[in-house]
Amino acid sequence: MKVNGVEIEDTFAEAFGIKVARVLITAYDYDWAKVAATEATGFGTSVIMCPAEAGIEKKALPSETPDGRPGYYIQICHMSKKGLEEQLLARIGQCVLTAPTTAAFNGLPDAENKFDIGFKLKFFADGYEKELEVGGRKCWAVPMMEGDFIVENDIGYVDGVAGGNFFIFAETQPSGLAAAKAAVQAIEDVEGVITPFPGGIVASGSKVGANKYKFLKATTNEKFAPSIRDQIEDTQIPENVKAVYELVINGISIDAVKEATKVGILAATKIPGVVKITAGNYGGKLGQHLINLHELF
Amino acid sequence: MKVNGVEIEDTFAEAFGIKVARVLITAYDYDWAKVAATEATGFGTSVIMCPAEAGIEKKALPSETPDGRPGYYIQICHMSKKGLEEQLLARIGQCVLTAPTTAAFNGLPDAENKFDIGFKLKFFADGYEKELEVGGRKCWAVPMMEGDFIVENDIGYVDGVAGGNFFIFAETQPSGLAAAKAAVQAIEDVEGVITPFPGGIVASGSKVGANKYKFLKATTNEKFAPSIRDQIEDTQIPENVKAVYELVINGISIDAVKEATKVGILAATKIPGVVKITAGNYGGKLGQHLINLHELF
Amino acid sequence: MKVNGVEIEDTFAEAFGIKVARVLITAYDYDWAKVAATEATGFGTSVIMCPAEAGIEKKALPSETPDGRPGYYIQICHMSKKGLEEQLLARIGQCVLTAPTTAAFNGLPDAENKFDIGFKLKFFADGYEKELEVGGRKCWAVPMMEGDFIVENDIGYVDGVAGGNFFIFAETQPSGLAAAKAAVQAIEDVEGVITPFPGGIVASGSKVGANKYKFLKATTNEKFAPSIRDQIEDTQIPENVKAVYELVINGISIDAVKEATKVGILAATKIPGVVKITAGNYGGKLGQHLINLHELF
Amino acid sequence: MKVNGVEIEDTFAEAFGIKVARVLITAYDYDWAKVAATEATGFGTSVIMCPAEAGIEKKALPSETPDGRPGYYIQICHMSKKGLEEQLLARIGQCVLTAPTTAAFNGLPDAENKFDIGFKLKFFADGYEKELEVGGRKCWAVPMMEGDFIVENDIGYVDGVAGGNFFIFAETQPSGLAAAKAAVQAIEDVEGVITPFPGGIVASGSKVGANKYKFLKATTNEKFAPSIRDQIEDTQIPENVKAVYELVINGISIDAVKEATKVGILAATKIPGVVKITAGNYGGKLGQHLINLHELF
Repeated sequence: MKVNGVEIEDTFAEAFGIKVARVLITAYDYDWAKVAATEATGFGTSVIMCPAEAGIEKKALPSETPDGRPGYYIQICHMSKKGLEEQLLARIGQCVLTAPTTAAFNGLPDAENKFDIGFKLKFFADGYEKELEVGGRKCWAVPMMEGDFIVENDIGYVDGVAGGNFFIFAETQPSGLAAAKAAVQAIEDVEGVITPFPGGIVASGSKVGANKYKFLKATTNEKFAPSIRDQIEDTQIPENVKAVYELVINGISIDAVKEATKVGILAATKIPGVVKITAGNYGGKLGQHLINLHELF
Repeated sequence: MKVNGVEIEDTFAEAFGIKVARVLITAYDYDWAKVAATEATGFGTSVIMCPAEAGIEKKALPSETPDGRPGYYIQICHMSKKGLEEQLLARIGQCVLTAPTTAAFNGLPDAENKFDIGFKLKFFADGYEKELEVGGRKCWAVPMMEGDFIVENDIGYVDGVAGGNFFIFAETQPSGLAAAKAAVQAIEDVEGVITPFPGGIVASGSKVGANKYKFLKATTNEKFAPSIRDQIEDTQIPENVKAVYELVINGISIDAVKEATKVGILAATKIPGVVKITAGNYGGKLGQHLINLHELF
Repeated sequence: MKVNGVEIEDTFAEAFGIKVARVLITAYDYDWAKVAATEATGFGTSVIMCPAEAGIEKKALPSETPDGRPGYYIQICHMSKKGLEEQLLARIGQCVLTAPTTAAFNGLPDAENKFDIGFKLKFFADGYEKELEVGGRKCWAVPMMEGDFIVENDIGYVDGVAGGNFFIFAETQPSGLAAAKAAVQAIEDVEGVITPFPGGIVASGSKVGANKYKFLKATTNEKFAPSIRDQIEDTQIPENVKAVYELVINGISIDAVKEATKVGILAATKIPGVVKITAGNYGGKLGQHLINLHELF
Repeated sequence: MKVNGVEIEDTFAEAFGIKVARVLITAYDYDWAKVAATEATGFGTSVIMCPAEAGIEKKALPSETPDGRPGYYIQICHMSKKGLEEQLLARIGQCVLTAPTTAAFNGLPDAENKFDIGFKLKFFADGYEKELEVGGRKCWAVPMMEGDFIVENDIGYVDGVAGGNFFIFAETQPSGLAAAKAAVQAIEDVEGVITPFPGGIVASGSKVGANKYKFLKATTNEKFAPSIRDQIEDTQIPENVKAVYELVINGISIDAVKEATKVGILAATKIPGVVKITAGNYGGKLGQHLINLHELF
């Protein structure tokens, strides 16, 4: 199968369940909302060694937000409920409450599951907090140096998806990178998903465990490493491929992750020098969700 | 004393000792270096609830870097040596190694103290790593999807400074914010310092402990909260002040933090609506470093 | 009348007819499309001394564009048909054709009026041009250094609107500026409009003609100048106002300009320190379009 | 000769004389200075069909500027003295005076030649202007809506250089583009030069005159067009080259342009997929300045 003239391998991405909270950060303007969103979602590429997986989802127009200001949705993902709550408290408390002109609202107001993050953060006001309603939401005003920080009492979360993915094989490193960037930007307008890696892109693929250094849980996937192609008998790197980039997609639903995968592949295959698109899986035995690439088109 | 017509209070900032590692991230261009630098320094405003204090320091010209590519210096700060090493491993391993086109070098090549971060990260190569020299530095090449990730064997650290600070009192919230932003941008060109909070700015000031909610280690400093000025007998907020912003400055030396404080105050006092500059301290009894504001000018 | 607690003066904006062409620029990603869009719309604030009025309108999703790539709509405005055609030729020929990875399509495919800009630009190919269809549009491929530049044969234009406007009166200059910026960003998501001044904001208001220097067609409107308030008997500046900013809005229809005015005022009045919103007119005798502020809400 | 492993052709760039004015724009912060600088230098790629060649040169630190604020140097270039003065008046008057928080100073205070642009712009104040000294410079304060616009009486210009250049031949379009971008960013730190094309990059090369459409002064250089390589007998495109990008460099001196050429080539040759660097000339008979590529290294 070809999309925009590029071969799409007949395979599937294997994705996993994860708990996903969604926070709506508003501010004076998109720039200030992004400052807080960026800090709050940093150091959040993979739960292997980061305290959470996190990313900026998409813009929220002033007409969509409880306080009528512009903002961004962010997602914080964690394998455990307890870990997710801790991360929400720390990331909102240290990176949004401290940021200029921001407010934090529930990004999943219809979710059944929620944490009372705002209720817990209001104790920072040391008795000077005030309950108030903003756009019909129960919120707290926390007096501080710049004025009042507004935070919604509850933040919702759902059983979402982690590790949706596809791989871009390219003739040159810049071709692969330009394709990956185009894919990330296209996915930024898809509702409900994030691409948690730096700039949305993964430059390093890993396999579970190790051949040589058995003390490691994950090591480079040598079959996908172009620079040592000649040393690996069962390399997966075609002769004309000099670089591979992966997009990892998390989201609040499998449908959102599928849509992002499709939109991302459509964008990546527009860039010259892309040789092939494929996806990563573990034979379908580990992951909760399988995304067949061909079925997307 | 007045600077640019703005009163500078006769007081001092009280700063603390902290261990500071400095990493030089290079990439194709400044944009890609910043992508990795941003991810690696996120969730890093304050060690109160973040796993580290971290920030982007300044640009490194191609002519200054071991591999002749453009880059950014970042700083990672932690109270303990062990904690600092863990954070370096996790943040470089998850946010720089995974990022497109980056390499990571020692940002303090003359420091006596160092961690063998590169040596530890090379195990990810599962036996395919190669030692090489880049610009006279001992490095490792780790084969992965996009090609080889280059990382220097050692990353240096020093006994640095945390919590340098000054406060901007302003007639309106936007005045204070514009002043704080101007200060942050001026400080970005000072060698050796970071402003670890979101966008470099702190919107929330805290006091040690609590009056009401004794179970908290830090709560809002109600004396610096303009919105409850009328309820606080010993408020420090003048009648014409509607907002206060703080800049927190960490650095590799007290001289660098002093220079940043000076440059930041000069910039902030250029903005209309700034009423007063002051600084935060604990009476001089807790911190290792005292920075007298008047002595800066 | 008050909006978000801010007084909206009972007055109207007086706008004028102008010819508006709309071009869709696509590229590898939004960043490269914006590079071309920015160059092509520069030096385009006001036809008083600029060769055109021009601005970036809004993002075009890959799914909306003829070539399936991301892009931006731009508008080029001129009082005369001849002048508009010249500006389109020069700005697309020098600032889009020359820019990396771009293509230029008709941004008003349903407009009756059009210029055959693509047909004229194809002569640059010196005989090597090729006609082709992209997304059902008649286009030309112009071979050049980076590959082929694709340009649609026709670019549409309509009788649009120039000079929609509102004014923000603020307690401090940074308050007014933050409000103006918030308004500009809110307007960026409105279909069919641009804010042609630098960053979308006008810092200088003018009156027709002059009192003293009669050789000038337009001079500062001293009644709206806060710094000389005490010298002007009939000043329009209230005592607590230190700065005024204007937003000028052009668009392809009066309805789009009205929507932008509304959205902009809603955003501006969210910022602390905004005292009043008003609009500029010439008594309703000169302009083709009157926009009553109160009727917007 | 090879630089970073890439062949540098033994040839020279042929550059021309042009008049170059340099303006220093300061503002609240670098972002606002850049807003004005971008508008003022737009529609300024080539004097073939743009009213000027123009670009942003580099940042000016607060400590370097007359008013102690951050800023950017811009350059405006024109073949004639009269044309240059007109462009300065129009671009400063319409794109800097109108922009928020900006001031405009002489960027070449030691130049013998100067235009009294500030003197002429002050008439906009209609009698309310005031002379003042800023950092030892004779300036005018023009009262307007946001407050006073400060502009220096004189703006200097010199006999500078236009059309310094080099070409990047690349295996894929994204490789060439990544190399061109890296070169532009490296050149941004060189004192005294601009790269006037969109994003600093030229995607279309031209030859003087035409083979087929004789009514045109300049047409595509078919010998440098990869997509029609097979149709051109004396093509200059090697078999493995899919895209060529050019950097055009203007500057206030030939030494500055040479330094930029060197720095740019060093940066471009770091990017994978770059095959060759060469330069454009007319046999050395037309241009005032010849820049031999090999002599740079």
